[in-house]
Amino acid sequence: MLYAGSFDPITNGHLDLIERSARLCDLLIVGVTENLSKSARYPVADRLRMLRLAVAHLANVETESFTGLLADYAKRRNVEAVVRGLRATMDFEYELQMAHMNARLYENGIETLFLMSSPAYSFVSSSLVSEVFTLGGDVEGLVPGPVLEYMKSIR
Amino acid sequence: MLYAGSFDPITNGHLDLIERSARLCDLLIVGVTENLSKSARYPVADRLRMLRLAVAHLANVETESFTGLLADYAKRRNVEAVVRGLRATMDFEYELQMAHMNARLYENGIETLFLMSSPAYSFVSSSLVSEVFTLGGDVEGLVPGPVLEYMKSIR
Amino acid sequence: MLYAGSFDPITNGHLDLIERSARLCDLLIVGVTENLSKSARYPVADRLRMLRLAVAHLANVETESFTGLLADYAKRRNVEAVVRGLRATMDFEYELQMAHMNARLYENGIETLFLMSSPAYSFVSSSLVSEVFTLGGDVEGLVPGPVLEYMKSIR
Amino acid sequence: MLYAGSFDPITNGHLDLIERSARLCDLLIVGVTENLSKSARYPVADRLRMLRLAVAHLANVETESFTGLLADYAKRRNVEAVVRGLRATMDFEYELQMAHMNARLYENGIETLFLMSSPAYSFVSSSLVSEVFTLGGDVEGLVPGPVLEYMKSIR
Amino acid sequence: MLYAGSFDPITNGHLDLIERSARLCDLLIVGVTENLSKSARYPVADRLRMLRLAVAHLANVETESFTGLLADYAKRRNVEAVVRGLRATMDFEYELQMAHMNARLYENGIETLFLMSSPAYSFVSSSLVSEVFTLGGDVEGLVPGPVLEYMKSIR
Amino acid sequence: MLYAGSFDPITNGHLDLIERSARLCDLLIVGVTENLSKSARYPVADRLRMLRLAVAHLANVETESFTGLLADYAKRRNVEAVVRGLRATMDFEYELQMAHMNARLYENGIETLFLMSSPAYSFVSSSLVSEVFTLGGDVEGLVPGPVLEYMKSIR
Repeated sequence: MLYAGSFDPITNGHLDLIERSARLCDLLIVGVTENLSKSARYPVADRLRMLRLAVAHLANVETESFTGLLADYAKRRNVEAVVRGLRATMDFEYELQMAHMNARLYENGIETLFLMSSPAYSFVSSSLVSEVFTLGGDVEGLVPGPVLEYMKSIR
Repeated sequence: MLYAGSFDPITNGHLDLIERSARLCDLLIVGVTENLSKSARYPVADRLRMLRLAVAHLANVETESFTGLLADYAKRRNVEAVVRGLRATMDFEYELQMAHMNARLYENGIETLFLMSSPAYSFVSSSLVSEVFTLGGDVEGLVPGPVLEYMKSIR
Repeated sequence: MLYAGSFDPITNGHLDLIERSARLCDLLIVGVTENLSKSARYPVADRLRMLRLAVAHLANVETESFTGLLADYAKRRNVEAVVRGLRATMDFEYELQMAHMNARLYENGIETLFLMSSPAYSFVSSSLVSEVFTLGGDVEGLVPGPVLEYMKSIR
Repeated sequence: MLYAGSFDPITNGHLDLIERSARLCDLLIVGVTENLSKSARYPVADRLRMLRLAVAHLANVETESFTGLLADYAKRRNVEAVVRGLRATMDFEYELQMAHMNARLYENGIETLFLMSSPAYSFVSSSLVSEVFTLGGDVEGLVPGPVLEYMKSIR
Repeated sequence: MLYAGSFDPITNGHLDLIERSARLCDLLIVGVTENLSKSARYPVADRLRMLRLAVAHLANVETESFTGLLADYAKRRNVEAVVRGLRATMDFEYELQMAHMNARLYENGIETLFLMSSPAYSFVSSSLVSEVFTLGGDVEGLVPGPVLEYMKSIR
Repeated sequence: MLYAGSFDPITNGHLDLIERSARLCDLLIVGVTENLSKSARYPVADRLRMLRLAVAHLANVETESFTGLLADYAKRRNVEAVVRGLRATMDFEYELQMAHMNARLYENGIETLFLMSSPAYSFVSSSLVSEVFTLGGDVEGLVPGPVLEYMKSIR
């Protein structure tokens, strides 16, 4: 199974999805997108490092970065399914659009599976966490502990 | 994996989800809910019969009816995941609520997995199909062929 | 052009749509649905009478009741387009579903055209108006004057 | 300030809103609607009793039942504001419609104030709690403890 | 009738709306907006050329570019109605806002008419098509054939 | 009570919320955010001046600009509640996310209170008003009179 994102930075909402997805398969690949339509706050090397700090305790999770279309990456990695999180209606519409587009691009029947975010993380997004952190707010409990340490160390 | 619903009657949208889900697991159990909060158009025996006509070509699909909570049924059948379809924003909000409630009731980590309905079936619901059929409209292509035959035979 | 509904009762929101639609075509047929999935508050004869009181000032509007599918009625009346109003997101999803279903049923290319309700009527629905009226609230300005008189006369 | 509802039964989501609202004013009136458009699961006497069990610890909360329009009740009680909870988009659209209608009915400037439900209660509704309870599911933590006792005692 | 957009590039979703709109009127003007709030991927000359390639088979469609407010352009061209497409809830809210604003700006009763996108094109947007194309994905079937040729020729 | 925003520029929708909020408390502080995630059209000095022109008639409204997190500003000013406006579903989801985040950051129980925008202003936003004004459209009635004069004077 594959879970992909920009993880800019990884939040406890992402981690919750990774842990739940990892229980559903033998191997979960977590891919960090290098090329983003909007510019990233953290370079891909930092985003990958923070991801690895967050999932160090999970034995069947493999991490890497990738470029190009998610659909091509999923074909290269030969996965059966790509997992995505849903938090709110805004997410839903965007994800619906992407799932239909990817269903066309996959061709070989790769499925997009959705998990609902836990209520406790329904309001957590990388961009909001970043904005609060940049303005000096406390984001403890919103990102994994080692990730928060890393964010502070490179501030 | 478990897929449950009232299937009143089963539509091509349901069948699309069953076929896609069956490719993702060894055994897909499809459960027909006997007790409905709103009254059903077809008795459970007819709903189960139509479901079976629709999935006759699928080797790893098992069908049955059940009573009580979906969460209890899922625990009894010892499944890892329950699959649900998402068509539109209205579905999303209801399913989000149910997924959170079931996450509490499952306790043992059964996951709710969501698949997006194919665009071609995004507007198809059992209640709309039934209403059109009752008023004499043509629902060919919206329900599986053998199901349409059955619906006509018991009209 | 055709505009159909239950008009139970007709509101100023409906009238606004009728007036705007009538400016866009030579003849606007307004059809009152006799058979409703949910039971109506007013019998069809009263609903038609209230509609006629409301549109008496519009020269190119024809009113009648009909039974069966809207799609069949539109074909019988040989219209090119059916017009519908949109107030809010809830309306949108339901109307999207119906428009796709009707596109199938029309076959001959009858189009569904949507007009957005004016902001002043965005919160007005027949059911809410009825509920407020039944509980003794003031609905002046929400239904046409002669309609309000009629509602009071048959209370 | 006034908070009204059917409380059929009161949930921990309602209680959270009552506690937060009570901190914002000198006196919070909580009104149980007697007349419901849809039939209630519990009679109004039971609904009021469960509400009182739930708010016994709140000194500045007054409870009673009422009939008729919320707008008329708010005028009778001479409140400045009516408070409502928002959980999800479905709530939002309905509440938007009601707030606009009530703004017309209040005339004297009574405001509708909205509080967002806490994430932990975003999926909790009276009807879902009731359905789960009726089917034998565990609703501990979703309704106040004494309310659950009461629900069991009159089952 | 007038249909306007940035067409950056024109998709099969746009073309479907143009064909359906052209059947509803004597002359359909399709206007390409020169000034965009966000920067365009293709210059206006290319966008206009691609549009013309796409509608070459439609006798009653006229194409041109325009600057300034859509409302002013619609008044200049003396149209009775402006047609817009609706795909999803996100579209709906934005279009509702624009329709209300334009109703103020038109003054002379120009109407905004909405058509629902066909289910097959519900997930197709210029920006998503562009992104997929730029990353090397296959967009055949999402844009008209001659448009795809043109996009490849100027890549 | 505190009401904060970028007011870029202040609209009649904002003013309606300020007037309604000011009736609910002894002192309403209106804060103009200096630091914006997206760049502002007007410098903060102009935005504050326009706000002051708009609220000159309100005795219990105090205006100022602020930097940093809204949550920190609310704590500094020692308010019990922050008021926000809701126009549409898009607003709702964003505001829900922010309200949950701020509930964490406030710690001391500051509440976010929401008021629904009046239907007449449901389509009015600073960005849309600005865009129309920049393209030469008439925005009279959408911003307070003195604000429109000011906008013209610094064009």
